[in-house]
Amino acid sequence: MTLPEDWFTEIHEQAGCAFSLRVRERLHVEQTPFQKIEIYDTSDWGRLMVIDGYVMLSSRDNFLYHEMMSHPMLYCHPAPRRVAIIGGGDCGTLREVLRHAEIEQVTQVDIDERVTRLSEIHFPELCEANDDPRARLLFDDGIRWIANAPEAGLDLIIVDSTDPVGPGEGLFTESFYRDCLRALGEDGILVQQSESPIVDREILLGMREAMRAAGFANLHTLFFPQPVYPSGWWSATAARRAGGFEDFREHDVENKPFETRYYNAAIHRAAMATPAFFQRETGQG
Amino acid sequence: MTLPEDWFTEIHEQAGCAFSLRVRERLHVEQTPFQKIEIYDTSDWGRLMVIDGYVMLSSRDNFLYHEMMSHPMLYCHPAPRRVAIIGGGDCGTLREVLRHAEIEQVTQVDIDERVTRLSEIHFPELCEANDDPRARLLFDDGIRWIANAPEAGLDLIIVDSTDPVGPGEGLFTESFYRDCLRALGEDGILVQQSESPIVDREILLGMREAMRAAGFANLHTLFFPQPVYPSGWWSATAARRAGGFEDFREHDVENKPFETRYYNAAIHRAAMATPAFFQRETGQG
Repeated sequence: MTLPEDWFTEIHEQAGCAFSLRVRERLHVEQTPFQKIEIYDTSDWGRLMVIDGYVMLSSRDNFLYHEMMSHPMLYCHPAPRRVAIIGGGDCGTLREVLRHAEIEQVTQVDIDERVTRLSEIHFPELCEANDDPRARLLFDDGIRWIANAPEAGLDLIIVDSTDPVGPGEGLFTESFYRDCLRALGEDGILVQQSESPIVDREILLGMREAMRAAGFANLHTLFFPQPVYPSGWWSATAARRAGGFEDFREHDVENKPFETRYYNAAIHRAAMATPAFFQRETGQG
Repeated sequence: MTLPEDWFTEIHEQAGCAFSLRVRERLHVEQTPFQKIEIYDTSDWGRLMVIDGYVMLSSRDNFLYHEMMSHPMLYCHPAPRRVAIIGGGDCGTLREVLRHAEIEQVTQVDIDERVTRLSEIHFPELCEANDDPRARLLFDDGIRWIANAPEAGLDLIIVDSTDPVGPGEGLFTESFYRDCLRALGEDGILVQQSESPIVDREILLGMREAMRAAGFANLHTLFFPQPVYPSGWWSATAARRAGGFEDFREHDVENKPFETRYYNAAIHRAAMATPAFFQRETGQG
């Protein structure tokens, strides 16, 4: 069966698979100094943002990714106050972080201001917290920003980046992780999107190695569904200098004063469960 | 981006999405009295079986589906002895069930013998237990077979079927579920693949309603990844006349004498966790 021309397709060359969405219209296309951004209106998935040919998010299913990049580690940290988001220009992760009343400041550092400006137009629901006085939106190089961040000034760093090609590449290196470690407080946690556990296993295992080499003593990879990303199965990898990932503020999750669509206490534990093959490969319990 | 012609694509029309695999060669195509079966050799996913245009399984990722259709409910039942598999002609579920030493008999009832014969050729690893003396392979109408099955003769019925179109349609009805209920013993469990929780929600909710109407007092939908199926996120729904799904033979899982690639005790609990939106829609805790 051949797809008609009005479908957007992302081909994952190395994995020999592709995912397509039926589109009604391309609403916008633009080459920024950093990347090519496209916005589509789809038939069943709402708006779609594509960067350099890779699907970034759809209106329909981004709640899975954004909730899982934020809430599990926010509830794992005993008392998070200061958060940095590296990348995340669509502001969906920022919105989720700001739902936590105890957060005092969130700095979002995306290299490309156009991602945020286009998100404000095409994904306004993700940008509804951008005016929160606790939010600081910087358009700058996140690698340099973390390198210059005050020592131990952050409780949580969320790396919500593109794949390790193009501007996102430097976010998957030992030197970047070393700078993250320095910027994190005693209980600090780094969490980064870490690709598909089934079709991008080498990237994922390489990230874990680089994090460990940078001095993070404890790692934990979380798993969750994400239909618009290759294989529909995604991961995030969390890292700490000390302390484990078994405990989380479960009571606070049960009593959280905001609604989620995917995340809850049971889903928290579910995301932390390690598939047998991954346990054998990494030793993660 | 347009896909070259040597890719196999399954379009999910109602959901406006499609999934494609790069193929090297179509190894076989055949119209049986029941359906059209195709076998492909893919570049990265091993062999691929397609029925009536729908992906059934690939060598690379079928372990997720087959393990999750069998082990969670086998370990949930206190002492399973007699199992029926309705559909499942590729024999992958049968193989997993037969790994359980306490199983005395497994009857697989697939309407189309050609699925099994082609699986023996192209997926021999899935058929390696077909000669087990406890396995009984019938090629018959599963709906009629269940209707005529002795009362309370089964501990577990696994419905491993195609989507509710074509020969699989009758497997999603109240009258079929009523017959299943009659065929199950006191502690008996029915478990059926129940499509994507995100793009096939109406089918899934309809199945749950029909199961309940048929007299199953307790239901539980399980969630797991399955990259080659629409959205990459899949579900199975389990139903019991009495008794819940909270407990499982965890000690037996921890000491199981066979290897799995996805399933373990933590993944068991993870699959039972209910996403927030699904909890709101169904009340499932």
